[in-house]
Amino acid sequence: MATAPRDILTRLFHTALAAVHPKDCVPKHLPAPPKGRTIVVGAGKASAAMAAAVEAHWPGPLEGLVVTRYGHGVPCSRIEIVEAAHPVPDEKGRDAARRILALVKGLTPDDLVLCLVSGGGSALLSLPAEGLTLAEKQAMNKALLRCGATISEMNCVRKHMSAIKGGRLAAAAAPARVETLLISDVPGDDPAVIASGPTVPDPTSSADALAVLEKYGIAEPAAIRERFRRGIDETPKPGDPRLAGAEAIIVASPQEALEAAAAAARLLGYSALILGDAIEGEARDVAMVHAGIARQVARRGQPAPAPLVLLSGGETTVTVRGKGRGGRNAEFLLALAVALDGHPGIHAIASDTDGIDGTEESAGALLGPDSLARAQALGLDAKARLADNDGYGFFERLGDLVVTGPTRTNVNDFRAILIEPRR
Amino acid sequence: MATAPRDILTRLFHTALAAVHPKDCVPKHLPAPPKGRTIVVGAGKASAAMAAAVEAHWPGPLEGLVVTRYGHGVPCSRIEIVEAAHPVPDEKGRDAARRILALVKGLTPDDLVLCLVSGGGSALLSLPAEGLTLAEKQAMNKALLRCGATISEMNCVRKHMSAIKGGRLAAAAAPARVETLLISDVPGDDPAVIASGPTVPDPTSSADALAVLEKYGIAEPAAIRERFRRGIDETPKPGDPRLAGAEAIIVASPQEALEAAAAAARLLGYSALILGDAIEGEARDVAMVHAGIARQVARRGQPAPAPLVLLSGGETTVTVRGKGRGGRNAEFLLALAVALDGHPGIHAIASDTDGIDGTEESAGALLGPDSLARAQALGLDAKARLADNDGYGFFERLGDLVVTGPTRTNVNDFRAILIEPRR
Repeated sequence: MATAPRDILTRLFHTALAAVHPKDCVPKHLPAPPKGRTIVVGAGKASAAMAAAVEAHWPGPLEGLVVTRYGHGVPCSRIEIVEAAHPVPDEKGRDAARRILALVKGLTPDDLVLCLVSGGGSALLSLPAEGLTLAEKQAMNKALLRCGATISEMNCVRKHMSAIKGGRLAAAAAPARVETLLISDVPGDDPAVIASGPTVPDPTSSADALAVLEKYGIAEPAAIRERFRRGIDETPKPGDPRLAGAEAIIVASPQEALEAAAAAARLLGYSALILGDAIEGEARDVAMVHAGIARQVARRGQPAPAPLVLLSGGETTVTVRGKGRGGRNAEFLLALAVALDGHPGIHAIASDTDGIDGTEESAGALLGPDSLARAQALGLDAKARLADNDGYGFFERLGDLVVTGPTRTNVNDFRAILIEPRR
Repeated sequence: MATAPRDILTRLFHTALAAVHPKDCVPKHLPAPPKGRTIVVGAGKASAAMAAAVEAHWPGPLEGLVVTRYGHGVPCSRIEIVEAAHPVPDEKGRDAARRILALVKGLTPDDLVLCLVSGGGSALLSLPAEGLTLAEKQAMNKALLRCGATISEMNCVRKHMSAIKGGRLAAAAAPARVETLLISDVPGDDPAVIASGPTVPDPTSSADALAVLEKYGIAEPAAIRERFRRGIDETPKPGDPRLAGAEAIIVASPQEALEAAAAAARLLGYSALILGDAIEGEARDVAMVHAGIARQVARRGQPAPAPLVLLSGGETTVTVRGKGRGGRNAEFLLALAVALDGHPGIHAIASDTDGIDGTEESAGALLGPDSLARAQALGLDAKARLADNDGYGFFERLGDLVVTGPTRTNVNDFRAILIEPRR
């Protein structure tokens, strides 16, 4: 029996989630146990589920502490799970960072530090460098956000204000062996970028961080400039002997989630095209481009003929101008609805793989050819809701939200557009 | 001998232009000559070149008048060519519209009106409905632009304020046969939309136009509201007997330009994927999505492996915030440069097929992996130039503008991204 398109899309999303869930992707990448002690540390939205997977499969004794977002914890018996605030750090995260640094100190070359890192870990594992106050660090973060610096420029500065980021955690653990398992939520899957790379050598320097401040004319806090100028907060660089025993491996990525969905779509008789695992841009404009490609598939069979599923990952942005509710996935999908204007035979899903679209309790939403008509029958104006950034409100009224709760993994956004052949 | 990527991209653009130039696409669609007179009329950026193509191939006598944009004229011997202002109409266009209406009056069923329509024709063929002042029409156009109405809503209102749009030209020509040859620059290639369909039945009504004004709370000019309310400016509807002898045929379209470029790319050993002939959205975000797809091709061979050319058409928009120079194609390409960040092996071209990118004398520009480095050597900051909407300035300094002059055709924007295989 043929399955309804919205059920297919829901199934593709859950297939994608399963492919990147720690319980399957962590065990197959576990290293050999050490002669000495095993200390498990980590941070991120997936770190508790990663810790649970380690506990279930680790053949020897272990101990440790990981920090995850409020609501993303899972019960563990030997590894302590701490929940803390994201995206704005709180004291729980700072205390956890201190305790993690203490845990990895005084180890020997026979010991192993197993570090479990996933997206969100940067905010969850936040600890100012010694001598730097939290107020100074916060002031600098605000200045960075205001000035229009790129993500990599901001990360360069942040790594040089931190006691734990940019390879410092691994340096603290020396001479123990450090194995890091990462779930990637960043374009390019660079371990130095995921959660600001606490166990990965930092290719940037204090001088680079100072250059960022100079480029954007950031004079305050003067104490931070001065520290950068004097090179006080230098991070471990590639080749640093303290990190000689440190290895990092990506155990799950946005691409793997998309590949799993593509394979599932093909089993159901659809072709599948992955447009990209790191598509970025303003959500409503990214939606217009996706709509243009979907229409081309429907009208001309290009870039490939229907039945087809177009897949993409990566993180869009939303410039908030209205007062509505909704994360970037609901915004993307509402803009897609407006752009497709009830086009027959085109269905879509857009959801955050961590289960939290922005700050909502939904992961995302579903769209069908009849969504606009159903909205109109309810007196809902899609264009007006989009102008108000009210994607959540729109799809909530339609009963078309995707609700998963925290998935305890995180490979960024998942978008799938299903195009049926013309009848 | 291998050809340099930028030469290949330039060649693809010129191949695309040639495929949609009136001199080839008009002759093969010419109708049989009538028993009676042949009157050639028309409007648009391509109309003079279309008229020249008709003159060169028409087997019998003919006479007529077409209006084109300043600088887009070509010498004709039997058809009068008038140049007028675009995108803001002027008196030259209004006088031409009056004379065109006069030319098609008093014909017989044995006569043929050959109407040559292309993008830009709406502004070039602007004549207020009888009893409506130019000031009233202009006031309404301003209100429409301010209120956030969609293009189709604006066109509905405009057709009901015009003496010539929305099928009125064909109605005026009855009982003569009316054959319209169109070069499309609109998504969906709908003859009723291109240049506001002067010879095509209008599916919208005065009541629809009034509903648009009510939706956006446009009260002034009150005289126009009242005319819509009373149905004074009703356009010919589908089934109108005056348009029974009217036929319209698309002789060139954005898709044909892209197909020609795709075929040329394949002859040069590249695969070619057409993403869409009607991709819309803010230029810089459309660029980010294109960059994401190009990176996916380079990194993962998806949606298809390199060597590959990605092609897209359609019109992006630019929200001007800076003071720089540049049309939407230069803006797209500069944003693409920033997003690709010197990615090796990726080259691109973005150009307007009418030869005029926005209001510049360039059609667009070329991008290579070394563009950012060359810019830096000149002290040019790509991100800052993008923030200032200065795509023209950026590529002019690099010597990478594409300059064609008016091409005398118009199938909207042309974008091609060439991805070389990894070495």
